[in-house]
Amino acid sequence: MVDTAALQKYSLFGGLLPEEVERIRPLLGHEEHAPGELVMREGEPNDRIYFIVEGRVEVSRRGVVLVELGEGETFGEMELLDVMPSAATVKVLAPLSVATITNRAVHEIFRLEPRSFALIMMNLARDLSRRLRRMDGIVSGA
Amino acid sequence: MVDTAALQKYSLFGGLLPEEVERIRPLLGHEEHAPGELVMREGEPNDRIYFIVEGRVEVSRRGVVLVELGEGETFGEMELLDVMPSAATVKVLAPLSVATITNRAVHEIFRLEPRSFALIMMNLARDLSRRLRRMDGIVSGA
Repeated sequence: MVDTAALQKYSLFGGLLPEEVERIRPLLGHEEHAPGELVMREGEPNDRIYFIVEGRVEVSRRGVVLVELGEGETFGEMELLDVMPSAATVKVLAPLSVATITNRAVHEIFRLEPRSFALIMMNLARDLSRRLRRMDGIVSGA
Repeated sequence: MVDTAALQKYSLFGGLLPEEVERIRPLLGHEEHAPGELVMREGEPNDRIYFIVEGRVEVSRRGVVLVELGEGETFGEMELLDVMPSAATVKVLAPLSVATITNRAVHEIFRLEPRSFALIMMNLARDLSRRLRRMDGIVSGA
């Protein structure tokens, strides 16, 4: 299990008190993936948020690399939020250790820890907003 | 003041009970803008979420039109979330009636109505996710 201090420094858990992170921690999963593995495949369903504790991945769509992600960054949240098949393929570049939050765990957090849920959702929205700003910039040629 | 039934049908308030919408309603502002007016200007600060009750706007960046928005859609949430200057210019196309949620009101909702805050943040994240999916699609040539 990922330790509380490790989680707390990441923006996804920004604003949460140590005891709140501690109470959520047992609801998280953990996965390891080797370089070259596909963690998510474009068009296939995905039921969890992946939170990178260590390693590096490449996010691509129709073969076009959109972005690389590393420690402290998340993927999979879009599918969880908008209930659509995976928007992208995620390939491991450097040995990957991820904490996962399944759809079921998200509902548990909402039920048991509404304040933490609110902050995590705000942090996710903030991250999506930054990414959207970057993509808008690319589309407008900035 | 925008009425509760009108607000409740929109996705931003999805999941909120009528009494919860009723309690939040006094925290919202209201603005009207004429066609041609610029409601937000790229590069300038913005301290509120705009929620379109009626009308139509065009969102552009560096002169490139990114999207048009209408009834039930929001803008300004990116600046509120990531605390950066406006990412885009928003110009009124058809007479605009908007409900506004200022930064201050967002904090009040978090303090007084944590469950509503959580749902609104999730709804915002969902909307950002859909928009990001669309922009990713454009960038990858889908």
